[in-house]
Amino acid sequence: MSNTNARRRAALAGSPALTDVDAVIVTDLNNVRYLTGFTGSNGAALVWVTEPADPDQTSPDQTSPDQTSTDRISTDGRYLTQVAEQSADMTAIIARDCQSALLRFVADREPGARVAIEGHVVTVAAYEGLTELSSELGVQLVPVVDAVEQLRVAKDSNEVELITSACALGDAALADLIARGAISPGRTERQVARDLEWAMFALGADAVAFETIVAAGAWSAVPHHRPTDAVLAAGDLVKIDFGAVVGGYHSDMTRTFVLDEPAAWQVEIYDIVAAAQQAGRDALAVGADLAAIDGAARTLIADAGYGEYYVHGLGHGVGLQIHEAPGIGAAASGTLPDGATVTVEPGIYLPGRGGVRIEDTLVVTDGGATSLTTTSRSLTVL
Amino acid sequence: MSNTNARRRAALAGSPALTDVDAVIVTDLNNVRYLTGFTGSNGAALVWVTEPADPDQTSPDQTSPDQTSTDRISTDGRYLTQVAEQSADMTAIIARDCQSALLRFVADREPGARVAIEGHVVTVAAYEGLTELSSELGVQLVPVVDAVEQLRVAKDSNEVELITSACALGDAALADLIARGAISPGRTERQVARDLEWAMFALGADAVAFETIVAAGAWSAVPHHRPTDAVLAAGDLVKIDFGAVVGGYHSDMTRTFVLDEPAAWQVEIYDIVAAAQQAGRDALAVGADLAAIDGAARTLIADAGYGEYYVHGLGHGVGLQIHEAPGIGAAASGTLPDGATVTVEPGIYLPGRGGVRIEDTLVVTDGGATSLTTTSRSLTVL
Repeated sequence: MSNTNARRRAALAGSPALTDVDAVIVTDLNNVRYLTGFTGSNGAALVWVTEPADPDQTSPDQTSPDQTSTDRISTDGRYLTQVAEQSADMTAIIARDCQSALLRFVADREPGARVAIEGHVVTVAAYEGLTELSSELGVQLVPVVDAVEQLRVAKDSNEVELITSACALGDAALADLIARGAISPGRTERQVARDLEWAMFALGADAVAFETIVAAGAWSAVPHHRPTDAVLAAGDLVKIDFGAVVGGYHSDMTRTFVLDEPAAWQVEIYDIVAAAQQAGRDALAVGADLAAIDGAARTLIADAGYGEYYVHGLGHGVGLQIHEAPGIGAAASGTLPDGATVTVEPGIYLPGRGGVRIEDTLVVTDGGATSLTTTSRSLTVL
Repeated sequence: MSNTNARRRAALAGSPALTDVDAVIVTDLNNVRYLTGFTGSNGAALVWVTEPADPDQTSPDQTSPDQTSTDRISTDGRYLTQVAEQSADMTAIIARDCQSALLRFVADREPGARVAIEGHVVTVAAYEGLTELSSELGVQLVPVVDAVEQLRVAKDSNEVELITSACALGDAALADLIARGAISPGRTERQVARDLEWAMFALGADAVAFETIVAAGAWSAVPHHRPTDAVLAAGDLVKIDFGAVVGGYHSDMTRTFVLDEPAAWQVEIYDIVAAAQQAGRDALAVGADLAAIDGAARTLIADAGYGEYYVHGLGHGVGLQIHEAPGIGAAASGTLPDGATVTVEPGIYLPGRGGVRIEDTLVVTDGGATSLTTTSRSLTVL
């Protein structure tokens, strides 16, 4: 991992978002983890873009000096042991206010430096304090947006492996529930959700990716329903949206089942969503336009007359966060890079009646898109 | 709940932090929940401080108009049903960008208004966009800090009831593990953590309050250790820090056990921590100075010669967040109000050997402090 993290920091230093600065201080904790391996709840990372004027100067509050890099990780005393293990290739600066500590470090090494901070992360109040400190130190702050997030869109092989594991674990947990008849009339949404989450833990998940959605009957028409004590009944659509976390990386999958005998309207909307989802998956490719991918699926639903019942975007990136860049929607701009891991998840939601969503997590490579979630997409009657 | 939420909004409108503005737009999701009851993942609340000039003007994108208040909740289309249920006493403005939608609403009702936003929540990048919009709309933005968080320090009876339930649930889950011998030599930290979390779910927890800490042997010296496959052994200190969530409210408790026969040094540090924790609990009172409470416990540990091994603050508020205001530490300022719910959690951590922490969640009232976590604090040998 150390080489991986160093490579990511080098990629960040070369990012087009940072051509105009000497260094960047990263404070989003997922971004810190991505660049350093550190997973504590308080931390920041410093990555130099230019060579600092005075790279060899040491400061008194550092641990495990490392002569190979002037990049730094900062965290507080609670994480002394953890940071030494997780960010073994970096020197740590131990401080409660990590961002200020790193800013002082930069000012020591490179008087007058231009220092990027994460404008989409740092709050107005924190920025006010940092601005005061920076003028005291004689350095300049430059808010930049999404520099690390843009790097994170294209996953490396290690990341794809973890997401693949998380997806396989989700598939196995759902198969387990189906095999033991846990999704059946008489059970409650909450019971099914809990069973699914426990099955994921039993299979070795670090955590669930998000609060599991189990939505039965009319509730399946609510895209982001929270499980209740509503009882599953014969004839219900049951929509299940869930995921696992493995090594910090998420999976995301939705399947919609029907209990007992499907009604004609249920089969109709299921088939349309399935065809739209297939069209969306087929549209994934390296270099594909994000809005065009959304359009490929959306057109199919609109042409079938259900456009107004499909109320969200087609998908999103999945990685250290369950929702991350890129968003795949009608208003999205940009294209898919090699290694992007994204969801494709169209739906039709008929208020008061029921809804269907089918969602996979896929990885996009030169060879096309591969679905990492592999549970059958055919209408399954339980 | 509706009356409660309306009362909280009225309290916010009267907050000393907001004397100089016409309205406040709240975007922190816990604060939104506190003021409106809404628990979705995208939302903002508008609370008027002054009467708007044009209270009766209606706008086209509103649901369920309500003539009793000009306060508004905003969320996006995914939460249409949910917001109508959870914030039944408020009119909702449905928009993807809730903060901008509310800002436009304010500008319509009160041209030239001064509008507070949460400076500790809104990011630099978001503020830039809002600043542009506000100058277009002819209103002024005023960043304020912690206005709602300060209100949240003093819990009302409904909140204390939920925290009490969460604490009781945590006590019961731990008792269950002890009763069935689940904390014993040969088991791993991870197994114990998982068992405890499952026990909380089985008892009806909505969620775990945070990733359960189980730290055995030398790992118990790491204040925020993540459970590993390390095997519990006779003679180990086993530190367990965990909590449950009930109705959105958290519990927080730490107990440290010893397996088999305690060594003299383990008994020594346990007794010091227990005495310090008692002193900290005794120092809790309405009006008590936060730094003095910390000092009451810290002095005892320092006088016993272990000051350098107690590396964190004494406690923190507990509520909709596991860590919230007030912080109880050496550098804290301010006093405890009636109804504050806080932790008291001193510790001694001997690197490479082991550590002890004892933590309770307590509610402070005129009658003194009552511990809501009730598991025995005596040294327990398992």
